[in-house]
Amino acid sequence: MDSINVIKVGGGILEDETSTAALLDRFAALPGRKVLVHGGGRSATRIAAQLGVESRMVEGRRITDEPMLRIVTMVYAGLVNKTAVAALQARGVNALGLCGADMDIIRGHKRPVKDIDYGWVGDIDRVDASMLQKLIDEHVVPVVAPLCHDGKGHMLNTNADTIAREVASALAGSYKVTLTFCFEKPGVLARPDDDNSVIPHINKPLFTQLKAEGIISGGMIPKIDNAFDALDAGVEKVIITRADNLDGSHGTLID
Amino acid sequence: MDSINVIKVGGGILEDETSTAALLDRFAALPGRKVLVHGGGRSATRIAAQLGVESRMVEGRRITDEPMLRIVTMVYAGLVNKTAVAALQARGVNALGLCGADMDIIRGHKRPVKDIDYGWVGDIDRVDASMLQKLIDEHVVPVVAPLCHDGKGHMLNTNADTIAREVASALAGSYKVTLTFCFEKPGVLARPDDDNSVIPHINKPLFTQLKAEGIISGGMIPKIDNAFDALDAGVEKVIITRADNLDGSHGTLID
Repeated sequence: MDSINVIKVGGGILEDETSTAALLDRFAALPGRKVLVHGGGRSATRIAAQLGVESRMVEGRRITDEPMLRIVTMVYAGLVNKTAVAALQARGVNALGLCGADMDIIRGHKRPVKDIDYGWVGDIDRVDASMLQKLIDEHVVPVVAPLCHDGKGHMLNTNADTIAREVASALAGSYKVTLTFCFEKPGVLARPDDDNSVIPHINKPLFTQLKAEGIISGGMIPKIDNAFDALDAGVEKVIITRADNLDGSHGTLID
Repeated sequence: MDSINVIKVGGGILEDETSTAALLDRFAALPGRKVLVHGGGRSATRIAAQLGVESRMVEGRRITDEPMLRIVTMVYAGLVNKTAVAALQARGVNALGLCGADMDIIRGHKRPVKDIDYGWVGDIDRVDASMLQKLIDEHVVPVVAPLCHDGKGHMLNTNADTIAREVASALAGSYKVTLTFCFEKPGVLARPDDDNSVIPHINKPLFTQLKAEGIISGGMIPKIDNAFDALDAGVEKVIITRADNLDGSHGTLID
């Protein structure tokens, strides 16, 4: 089975010219099959504000009414995605920018309203990896924006970590998948303020223990839950690290 | 040789909800292989104005400085393109939204500055139809935004008629191509104010004659030049018509 790297970058890395160039240099240098999944929230917030549309966030999720859906569609699938694609082409990477509607690769449904109406926010039903696989085997490198679609004509704003997890899981049927989540820290830290306290290896028993001890808490818990979901779906390993370490030699390995 | 329809829609057809739905219904109903090429200038002008960026046009071409390039990238390749892709998926069409940077399909160069500096406007050097053909033969329907790229990391704003002509010409190596330009009139008119005066058939001698007589003038001349360029490149026939006639039974046939 061939190997593939699925790299998720967030935290505004693709929204600043210097960090974008550094990230794309590193991504281009990764050998073999690869997929890039990106966010774009900071650009969306900035452009929404310029357009007089207020960004409302609930528990880190963007309330996506119709005007906001138009903004995230153009910012994620247009500005951030195609700028990265053109920049990767300049680095010799045969990138293809995709959102979930393209070739029907990521189908979802509008999140049902319980306490909060998130609007046009999607939960993923399925990823169709068959066309992705054909393209990847032709040395195409998919660059995926955090949008799925409902099959009824609507785009749906979708969490980029979730997109990465689901794409990685779908590809696990055909490849040995390494899923790397890049964020602003060098890994999962034992002491939040100490970048030298990276926990090198977390498995399920240790995760349970670290949660019980309060060493892992807050937003790191869903991130690691996400990692274990990917492993349960057949992904070989998950790495949580900083974008300056795409080769997986540092950071926290989850398996 | 299999047949393919390359349909170019402009004139704001994909920028108004009602005309978009009607156009996409007709496009979805077209049997067989097909490609959609679209514009997006009206949306770009509107969103640019909302963002406080002035649209400057010279001879119908948009002066594209860096801020305007970001706007057309997000509006053409994001908003207009992905909205159409999601709407086509809902109609059972396996659409894939592309700009020229995706899989390096349309490479161009920044137009040299002579009298006018158009900024990041591109003239096309080549279309790579090989990946397009593979996708089309898998029943994927490319939806192409009017942007090429320079291979050095820059998107380039590109005339949608030119994109359509070049894509149609590149596909002519593998298919019998019909290229249809949709605009606001039912065809090339003998009398500009009379929609019933469609000239059904124009070949090169008649074009020369009609130009000499002043019956064809102004912006229609480059449109028909474009059509003959496509024919010279191997396209089977070119139709100039209105978007409510995608089946080619009316309008002006150029061959």
